[in-house]
Amino acid sequence: MSADLVPETSVLAIASHVVYGHVGNKMATLVMQSLGCEVAALNTVHFSNHTGYRQFRGTRATAEEIRNLYEGLCLNYLTDFDVMLSGYAPSAAAVEAVGTIGQDLQRKAADRPGSFFWVLDPVMGDQGRLYVNDDVVPAYKSVIQYADLILPNQFEAEVLSGVQITSLSTLAQAITTLHATYNVPHVIITSVQLSKLSPFQENPSPPSTQNLLTVIGSTTRSNGTPRLFRIDVPALDCFFSGTGDMFAALTVARLREAVFSDPDSNLRNTKSWVSADEVSPAELPLAKATEKVLASMHDVLGKTIEARDKELASTGASGGDEDAKREHLRRTKAAEIRLVRNVRFLRQPTVEFKAKEWEGNL
Amino acid sequence: MSADLVPETSVLAIASHVVYGHVGNKMATLVMQSLGCEVAALNTVHFSNHTGYRQFRGTRATAEEIRNLYEGLCLNYLTDFDVMLSGYAPSAAAVEAVGTIGQDLQRKAADRPGSFFWVLDPVMGDQGRLYVNDDVVPAYKSVIQYADLILPNQFEAEVLSGVQITSLSTLAQAITTLHATYNVPHVIITSVQLSKLSPFQENPSPPSTQNLLTVIGSTTRSNGTPRLFRIDVPALDCFFSGTGDMFAALTVARLREAVFSDPDSNLRNTKSWVSADEVSPAELPLAKATEKVLASMHDVLGKTIEARDKELASTGASGGDEDAKREHLRRTKAAEIRLVRNVRFLRQPTVEFKAKEWEGNL
Repeated sequence: MSADLVPETSVLAIASHVVYGHVGNKMATLVMQSLGCEVAALNTVHFSNHTGYRQFRGTRATAEEIRNLYEGLCLNYLTDFDVMLSGYAPSAAAVEAVGTIGQDLQRKAADRPGSFFWVLDPVMGDQGRLYVNDDVVPAYKSVIQYADLILPNQFEAEVLSGVQITSLSTLAQAITTLHATYNVPHVIITSVQLSKLSPFQENPSPPSTQNLLTVIGSTTRSNGTPRLFRIDVPALDCFFSGTGDMFAALTVARLREAVFSDPDSNLRNTKSWVSADEVSPAELPLAKATEKVLASMHDVLGKTIEARDKELASTGASGGDEDAKREHLRRTKAAEIRLVRNVRFLRQPTVEFKAKEWEGNL
Repeated sequence: MSADLVPETSVLAIASHVVYGHVGNKMATLVMQSLGCEVAALNTVHFSNHTGYRQFRGTRATAEEIRNLYEGLCLNYLTDFDVMLSGYAPSAAAVEAVGTIGQDLQRKAADRPGSFFWVLDPVMGDQGRLYVNDDVVPAYKSVIQYADLILPNQFEAEVLSGVQITSLSTLAQAITTLHATYNVPHVIITSVQLSKLSPFQENPSPPSTQNLLTVIGSTTRSNGTPRLFRIDVPALDCFFSGTGDMFAALTVARLREAVFSDPDSNLRNTKSWVSADEVSPAELPLAKATEKVLASMHDVLGKTIEARDKELASTGASGGDEDAKREHLRRTKAAEIRLVRNVRFLRQPTVEFKAKEWEGNL
C-alpha cells in the first residue's frame, strides 16, 4: 500500500504561504506530504496569492515571529526533524533567524551523523534581477556554510559564487567555487539555459531543434573537487510560479529515498550523506534523486499546460476599461500549477531523462 | 486514474494553522487535497502546535488581516469557490469577518443556485466548556443563518439551540430548533455521547458492551421539519486533536460527491442542495456522505492508535524534575493523527456503518 511513498521522513519546511495557488510552502507541503513525509510548515509570509499576479494582500512574519514559532516547537519537544527545507524569507533578519534554526537542529543531531540534513533554496532573484532587498544577499552568504544542499538558480549561483556564468566552463567554475567558498557538499543549479551559453550540440539528432532545460548538480569528493552530473529535459515553453518550490520539495523526498536505498548502507549515517569518492557522478544519490524529480515535474507541468490552454479557450477575455490587466490576471490564474489531481505523477515518476557525468568543459 | 477523487471542487478553507501536527487548516487542507479538491487556505492563527500541548507560540490574525487576505483574492478574481469551509476564528470580530466573506461569496453566486455551499463548523467549545471568549457565541448566532450546513458538537448544539441535550428527545428538539432558528438546511451533530443520555439499547447483540459514538444529521423538508438520520460507530477509547476538522473536511468532499452522483441530477443546481421531500432520511446525500466520512475516520484513527501505542512503547518517559509535564507532551505528540501515510483510507473508505432513519424518540 505504501509502495509509492518514500521512507518515513519528518521535514521542517520554512517558506511562504499563499491562500490561493501553489507556491512556497503551499506547494512544498503538498508535494512532500503526497510522497509520505510528515511536514511541519513554518510560514514566513501570509499572502493572498503569489506575486506574479502583480497585486496581493497579506503580511510578512518578522524574524522574531519566526524565532517564536520555533521556540514553541522546542518547548514541546517537536524538533525531531530528519530534514529542513528552507525557502523564501522576507528579510535579511528572517534569513538569519532561519539560519539560527538550521544550526540549532544541526547541533541537536551532532552525535548522530546523517540524521539531519538541511536543504537550502537561496531565494533571491531570477533572470538577472534580485527580488529581495540587497542585504538579503550577505545574509545568505553567511548562512549557506551550514547547509548540506543548496538549490540556486543560475542567477543566484552567480550572486553567491561571484562567477558570471557565460559558458559551460564558467558554470563548472561557479559550482566549484560554491563548494569551496561555502563548504557546501551538494549543489544543484536548477534551470540552466544552455542555449544562451556557448555553442552546445552534444546530441545533434532529432529533436535537436527542441530547447533543452539543463540541470547541473554536484556532490563534492573528499578533496573538495566537484562530481558534476547533468540532466537535460525538453524545456516547456512557458513560465509557472512555484516550479522552484516544487523542485526543492521533490528533491527532499527523493534524495532521502535515494540515500536509504543506496548500495552503501552506511551512507545514511554519514555526515551530509556524501558518497565515497569512488561513486561516479551519475551514480550519486543526488543524481538518482534529480532524475525522479525532473520526471515528475515534466509530467505535472505538461498536464498544467493542457489544463491552462483548456481554461483559456473556455473563458474569453473580459471587456471593460481594464482589459490588459484583467487578461494578465486571467492568464496568471490559468497558469497555476495543477497539482492536486496529478499527484500520481509525483508518486510514480517515469524516468526518461537520465543523469550523465559531465566534465564541465565540453 | 482519478477514480478515487471526488468531482473537481474549489474550496476556500478558513481556519487555524499550526506548524507541527494536524489540526485546523493543516488537517483540512491535506484531507481535501487528498480527495482532489483545490484548497485555498486562509489561516486565522499561526501557532507552533495545537493547544492540547498546553503551551504554544505564535500569532492570531486580526479581523482586518482576514478581510485583507480576502480582498486580495477579490482583486485578482480568485473567488470562484464551490464551497467554503469555515472553522476556528480567534475572536468575535474574526467570526464576523468570516461571515462577511461567506455572504459575499453567496452574493456572487446568487444567480446560479447550488453553485456555492457554505459548511460552517461553529468552533466554540466541547465537553460543557467554552474555549472562546463569550462574545464569540452571539457572533456565531448572527452568522449561522447564512450557512448551508453546520457541524456543531453536542455542546455547541446546546449553546446555539438553547436546548440542553439530556435525552434523545431533547437531542431531536435541539436539531429542530437549529433548523428553525437559523433557517439552516443541513445539520450534523458530531460526537453525541448517547451512553450519557437516556437508556439506549437498540441493538443488544454483541458487541453490545462496546461504546458507540453516534452522529446525528438532518436535512430539512420544505415545511422546515427535520429529516433525521443516525450513524453509530464503535467509539475509540481515546481523544485526538483535529478529529472535528477532519470530519468537516471529509464532509465537504463527500457531500459534494454525493450531490453530484445523486439520482436527482438537478440537485446540484438547487439552492443549498436540499433534496426533494420524498427522499428518505437515510437516502439523503448528507447521510451517504457521512457514511463515507465516518468510515475513513474510523480507519485513520485506528491506525493512529496503533502508531501511538508503538511510539509510546519505544520511547520511555524521561527523567528529570518535570516528569509529569514531559510525559504529557510525549503522550500528546504520540497522539497526533497519522494522516500522510494513511491517505488511502481517505480515498477508499470501506463503509461498514450505515445511516438509519431516526425518529428522534427511539
